[in-house]
Amino acid sequence: MTAANRETVNRLSNYRKVLIKLKSLGFQKVFSDNLADALGVSAAQVRKDFSLFGLTGNKKGGYQVCYLIDKLNEILGKHEEQRIIIVGCGKLGNALMGHNRFVREGIKVVAGFDTDPAIIDPEARVPIHDLSTLPEFVAGEHVRIAIMTVPEGAANHVYEILLESDIRGILNFTPVQLKGNEHCVVHNVNLALEIENLFYFTK
Amino acid sequence: MTAANRETVNRLSNYRKVLIKLKSLGFQKVFSDNLADALGVSAAQVRKDFSLFGLTGNKKGGYQVCYLIDKLNEILGKHEEQRIIIVGCGKLGNALMGHNRFVREGIKVVAGFDTDPAIIDPEARVPIHDLSTLPEFVAGEHVRIAIMTVPEGAANHVYEILLESDIRGILNFTPVQLKGNEHCVVHNVNLALEIENLFYFTK
Repeated sequence: MTAANRETVNRLSNYRKVLIKLKSLGFQKVFSDNLADALGVSAAQVRKDFSLFGLTGNKKGGYQVCYLIDKLNEILGKHEEQRIIIVGCGKLGNALMGHNRFVREGIKVVAGFDTDPAIIDPEARVPIHDLSTLPEFVAGEHVRIAIMTVPEGAANHVYEILLESDIRGILNFTPVQLKGNEHCVVHNVNLALEIENLFYFTK
Repeated sequence: MTAANRETVNRLSNYRKVLIKLKSLGFQKVFSDNLADALGVSAAQVRKDFSLFGLTGNKKGGYQVCYLIDKLNEILGKHEEQRIIIVGCGKLGNALMGHNRFVREGIKVVAGFDTDPAIIDPEARVPIHDLSTLPEFVAGEHVRIAIMTVPEGAANHVYEILLESDIRGILNFTPVQLKGNEHCVVHNVNLALEIENLFYFTK
């Protein structure tokens, strides 16, 4: 793996999105300056990011749009559908199950998991299974990424179940800060923090 | 305003959370090393952040927990309830209306706004009003922060309404990347990007 950090990978995703739009406009070539403007970063940053991942262009001619998209798809694993599960199908989990932006980005929620019999529904469009069946499902369906939207009190228990399963990456919406380990990456999402941040910057 | 960036302010929020927990454990003093460990940053970073905001301690005795909490509350505007509105009360907007983590952090959703008569309900626990009444509501209730969870097609129109109102900060969940202006700060949230990022790091 290239020694990229989270911010770098986020920029790659954003370059890719801009490039797809440019391609749909008929663009064949693009300069680092243009991508820099679109993302609000410096052109030097764009060139540095690209060079880190071996993406080549030339100073006069710029970069080939299709070449960049292909390469970025490969790097980001976007040449195939990205399949995930959601653990905890309350209001937030349920909203994320139908999140349009996931569909648009080729991210498919293949199942939800819960412990509440009133919520479990294996016949639903996105089936909701009993939490106890998670390890088997994940192994059989080769799912590696999970979103955790369980109540705070269930967070540690569910985290242990996920760590013992084949899950390798977790997007954690619970208030319990999880650290991940060598087998499993955890990204903690805190929407309250985003709001607090806005309050600070609008004071 | 101190010249702090978004990451610095996020760290302040996180220091505050750790400090509140320490206080509840009876701690009266804390060292930068301990806060650094809790956040996974360096002790030098903690001291730099604190010094940027004029938070003082001494090398031998460390920082006073209560003093830090008071100061951070003041800096982050947490000495009073933080009131926000949600524009777009579909599944995601609705889930965020009842988001436990907001309540726990003293963030109160005072109203939702939508254009769908089937969703509008001024009598609900968190009232949902017609979008057309937003500017008046915001002015009257002195609300400055909005979450945007409208469909993509409505994003630009709603954004214009918010810009013309007294709203000064927006957390934008729509796929339309908004840039903000000198009167209004926009933070774009892209959960699909978080998922893509996890896929990269678990390849």
